[in-house]
Amino acid sequence: MDADEFRKAGHALIDWIAQYRETLEERRVMSAVRPGEIRARLPAQPPEQGGGAGELIALIERDVLPGITHWNHPAFFAYFPSNTSYASILGDLVCAGLGAQGMSWQTSPAATEVEQVMMDWLRQLLGLSTAWSGVIHDTASTATLCALLCAREQASGLAQAGPGLQAGRPPLVVYGSAQAHSSVEKAATLAGFGRAHVRLIETDARFALRPDALGEAIERDAAAGLVPCAVIATAGTTATTAFDPIAAIADLAAARGMWLHVDAAMAGTAMVVPEMRALWDGVERADSLVLNPHKWMGPGFDLTAYFCRDPQHLIRVMGTNPHYLRTQQDGDVANFRDWHIQLGRRFRALKLWFHLLDEGAEALRARLRRDLENARWLGARVAEAAADGWELIAPVALQTVCLRHAPPGLSAEALNEHNLAIARRINDGGRAYLTPTVVGGVQILRVSIGAERTERRHVEALWEALQAASQAAAPGA
Amino acid sequence: MDADEFRKAGHALIDWIAQYRETLEERRVMSAVRPGEIRARLPAQPPEQGGGAGELIALIERDVLPGITHWNHPAFFAYFPSNTSYASILGDLVCAGLGAQGMSWQTSPAATEVEQVMMDWLRQLLGLSTAWSGVIHDTASTATLCALLCAREQASGLAQAGPGLQAGRPPLVVYGSAQAHSSVEKAATLAGFGRAHVRLIETDARFALRPDALGEAIERDAAAGLVPCAVIATAGTTATTAFDPIAAIADLAAARGMWLHVDAAMAGTAMVVPEMRALWDGVERADSLVLNPHKWMGPGFDLTAYFCRDPQHLIRVMGTNPHYLRTQQDGDVANFRDWHIQLGRRFRALKLWFHLLDEGAEALRARLRRDLENARWLGARVAEAAADGWELIAPVALQTVCLRHAPPGLSAEALNEHNLAIARRINDGGRAYLTPTVVGGVQILRVSIGAERTERRHVEALWEALQAASQAAAPGA
Repeated sequence: MDADEFRKAGHALIDWIAQYRETLEERRVMSAVRPGEIRARLPAQPPEQGGGAGELIALIERDVLPGITHWNHPAFFAYFPSNTSYASILGDLVCAGLGAQGMSWQTSPAATEVEQVMMDWLRQLLGLSTAWSGVIHDTASTATLCALLCAREQASGLAQAGPGLQAGRPPLVVYGSAQAHSSVEKAATLAGFGRAHVRLIETDARFALRPDALGEAIERDAAAGLVPCAVIATAGTTATTAFDPIAAIADLAAARGMWLHVDAAMAGTAMVVPEMRALWDGVERADSLVLNPHKWMGPGFDLTAYFCRDPQHLIRVMGTNPHYLRTQQDGDVANFRDWHIQLGRRFRALKLWFHLLDEGAEALRARLRRDLENARWLGARVAEAAADGWELIAPVALQTVCLRHAPPGLSAEALNEHNLAIARRINDGGRAYLTPTVVGGVQILRVSIGAERTERRHVEALWEALQAASQAAAPGA
Repeated sequence: MDADEFRKAGHALIDWIAQYRETLEERRVMSAVRPGEIRARLPAQPPEQGGGAGELIALIERDVLPGITHWNHPAFFAYFPSNTSYASILGDLVCAGLGAQGMSWQTSPAATEVEQVMMDWLRQLLGLSTAWSGVIHDTASTATLCALLCAREQASGLAQAGPGLQAGRPPLVVYGSAQAHSSVEKAATLAGFGRAHVRLIETDARFALRPDALGEAIERDAAAGLVPCAVIATAGTTATTAFDPIAAIADLAAARGMWLHVDAAMAGTAMVVPEMRALWDGVERADSLVLNPHKWMGPGFDLTAYFCRDPQHLIRVMGTNPHYLRTQQDGDVANFRDWHIQLGRRFRALKLWFHLLDEGAEALRARLRRDLENARWLGARVAEAAADGWELIAPVALQTVCLRHAPPGLSAEALNEHNLAIARRINDGGRAYLTPTVVGGVQILRVSIGAERTERRHVEALWEALQAASQAAAPGA
């Protein structure tokens, strides 16, 4: 492909993406293909001859699109909002076009410095103090792993430089809530703590971590000769967007010199709206903080923000210094390769920059408030329909509504089946997509609101569809 | 930004990228900005009002481009080839435009299934057997961490489900060569082994791991009550592209039931050329293998290929199964979220697919052979110029040439200074960019050949520039 072929194919794909986005609403949200169907459409062998990129749009339409679940669809209510704005797409395009590596400052100074400015813009948007240093990671899973590694090395006096965790010393213990994201337990096990040294603390009626239970667990472990090492406070749990009481947890962590990591992966974006910030009161006392602008904010995946208070400790844990990576400027600059697990790094700051330039803080706040209001509206409808068997399973703290249909006279098992049937009817129907999950042992329907194009009418349509599905899925219907 | 504004800006950026690529050769390779210069150009606060994405090209030209070191420049000889072909750029564009998440099969079946086909195409291109299962990771650093975690859990009987590394059991030990990439030691320390349990084994005159020294180290550790756990064989070291003898290492690993991981991050791409495959003889006996198509092959960063022989073990180590991630198809499909550390995942297979369709296997092999031949040509020139003080520091095994200028009569220290001065003269001059590094205690010049646009004339120009710089940098010149 030469430059002119690139221009031609590029223009066509830009137009195709615009048309794809404009017609999203007409498409079914969840892909309807069966396992193996896409795979069977592709040649089993790689092409010997090139030149096969002339028909990219036909290829996408025929072999890819049927297998796409449309995350930017206005009726996408599953998992989390995964907005990828037009401006963000252009940021990714320029990132790929430049093909620059930002592993060291020298390998492309702009990649490091634009990122520094963007992380500072983000810090200001979230209302965080200047005590924080930010860096772009790929996902919250790796950022939380990074935080637990920093915690491990703080508690062990940088044991990685010596025997690591294999010193036969009193085991280090990690704490989170029973509603913490699965990546917390995964990070703790990958970091070598072992699941036997992870405490998933019980939650209260609002699914927030109970500080009294946490304090007891810490004291119990300390009394048994274990070393309380780190606690993860979740600001907005995955299932119900419950907020752990960070200030109370920070007191407990401080008393034992433990690392406090705040997982605000999804909900962190909400803090752009000042009236929401009380929900993470105490965040300034954390050692590290992760949030995913690639969820609700607008820049596309992957763009995780990792903030920490002591970048020198981070660099001690993550840094390497082989001869072939040394540059003339090493003493004067940030080499972001030493701020995370990976070495190579893309110029991801571009998509956050382009997005913020295009949307602006005022419109961003307005969009987030729209979504919060839509969630409250749906919560109110569910509460009003109690007589028809509808239940809210958790308070609507943010943009997620957890509900179920529980008509009288059904067994617990039948209720679970009934709600799973509702979810399948909605998702298979293609007009909307939500996540069935289990909270407190109960099968529920989880509606996450916040796609860029989701307006009140889409939430109204979902509520109608839920009611219709509850009739159609009723046992004996 | 609405669809029409996106079309307009998108077309302009496509044209800008084409023009940028066409004029690469006129640009200085290494950025000449000083620390803080780019940062100072950007506003310190995020914009309250949006609409600022109308001038993206002016912004890039003014605030970004001066801070870019051009990795796709034909005179880029530093680090490693980091090709991002036109077709790959389009793959990234479509990936961003779709904005789809491939964490589970259901969340976009095409993302999983196209990836499965592409990993199988890649397997065939490399001449690997059908015993391998492939998945896309982001970087070799995380893939090697993943391999060592699998090794740790194999040796410990899945201790992560219990006490982890904190059981007070005999320490597990990891082995690699003294020329192994810094990510090997970093992965071992992050995985909790501790640097005291990492053995960097001495190398031979060609900088390849000495199996006799490895065998002795293993026996010494076993005799001391430690548990040899994993060995990393490097197929193409970073400094000199030396190849560790995989077959001999595999014998030692097999005798102790150790995990064998092959790090072919850069050099793996060479195996697309059948006559190179003898260099990694024994690779079929490894447990895991990593290579980076995002280096020399053509698809842009990030696209690391991780191959393993036992995906079920990988899933045992990496898998999670919270309610909110379960889907109807879980028993029947691959959920790639369980194949690595991250949860979220982009549709990265698109850029490999588009690239292979566009270039084809035949042209890819021809391009790799061109680069290998260019490296041999430069190696021959250096060898011929011995009388002028030029030295080859290592055999030219691949596309990297390690050399230095060692005129007689200078102290070891003065020689190191002289060669560092040559490197700075070349890099600061802007007409080429190479990596100064230290091998065997000696300051050398490392020339990595393989940018997509690098032809013989660029290598000839570099050789002339090296000779000129050696005169200009000579002490007393």
